[in-house]
Amino acid sequence: MIQETIVTTLNPQGKAHLAPMGIHVQNDEFIILPFRPSTTLDNLLSSRTAVINYCDDVRIFAGCLTGHRDWPLSSAEIIKGVFLNAALAHCEVEIIRIEEDAIRPKLFCKAIHQVQHRPFEGFNRAQFSVLEAAILLSRVNHLPIEKIESELKYLAIGFEKTAGPREQEAWQWVTSAIQEKCHEASHS
Amino acid sequence: MIQETIVTTLNPQGKAHLAPMGIHVQNDEFIILPFRPSTTLDNLLSSRTAVINYCDDVRIFAGCLTGHRDWPLSSAEIIKGVFLNAALAHCEVEIIRIEEDAIRPKLFCKAIHQVQHRPFEGFNRAQFSVLEAAILLSRVNHLPIEKIESELKYLAIGFEKTAGPREQEAWQWVTSAIQEKCHEASHS
Repeated sequence: MIQETIVTTLNPQGKAHLAPMGIHVQNDEFIILPFRPSTTLDNLLSSRTAVINYCDDVRIFAGCLTGHRDWPLSSAEIIKGVFLNAALAHCEVEIIRIEEDAIRPKLFCKAIHQVQHRPFEGFNRAQFSVLEAAILLSRVNHLPIEKIESELKYLAIGFEKTAGPREQEAWQWVTSAIQEKCHEASHS
Repeated sequence: MIQETIVTTLNPQGKAHLAPMGIHVQNDEFIILPFRPSTTLDNLLSSRTAVINYCDDVRIFAGCLTGHRDWPLSSAEIIKGVFLNAALAHCEVEIIRIEEDAIRPKLFCKAIHQVQHRPFEGFNRAQFSVLEAAILLSRVNHLPIEKIESELKYLAIGFEKTAGPREQEAWQWVTSAIQEKCHEASHS
């Protein structure tokens, strides 16, 4: 099973980095698969720790891809790290072993400490639409424009019926960035 | 904003009823819009109370549409009602006013008591695929077969990459039921 989360890591100077990551859950282990090269991989290899943030604020996912990265953070409780104040829950993890790979090494982690901040408020279809649109944005250079347009049109249906203000803001960021990239591609 | 939840209600004899419902959240009020006629509407009008269950187990959503309705329940803490043991959180609500409507009356409710049971574990694309497929199933008689097939094909992409055992079971229930209904329709 894969959970879509925001992973926060620190570099040796204590600077925080946020990255949306699909975490593989396998028994009681988490597998983080950062791309090589990436800030998340560098930070994880040097600190051996990370925080997995369980967020329902899709602006943070959308923001990581569209230049909005300035979200309030607090110090983790056990490990040296930070968590997102917006997280409904977070898990502080430590690397237990690494499976090397030229593209995406597998970092097997165990939970050191879990914290519940706020209750889950139910599924929201607009949140899903934003998440899928963000995934489209990250792949926009590898997909035909017609496919991107037809998927966005489909995602807009559930989005328009169910979005609140946070989802509207995130959707705006992602769809503008997709339009811009498609426009660049058609003029290059 | 609309939250996709499971609403549990009791009839005057104390029999529980589960229904997947999109709850409108407006300031600090919840608006439940049950169809007329429905068991949820009858129960709400007689008891004036309900429990809104925030569940991430999509088998319960899928199960309500495919005949799997036997999920463990516990007594609510304040109101006369029940909540789903599988809920990550639940909210016990009371009707404060009703806006009549021939098809879907609007039941405005206020929260009486909220309980957090387990932490949110992050977004899972397969859960949303199941939820969207369940919505397709509920509308299958009003949609062209080609549209249903193309949407399921799209939803299957995120599903296959990220599903765990619960999501696989729920997807199986929903897609079998859709196939059955499409088959019936093409032979009627």
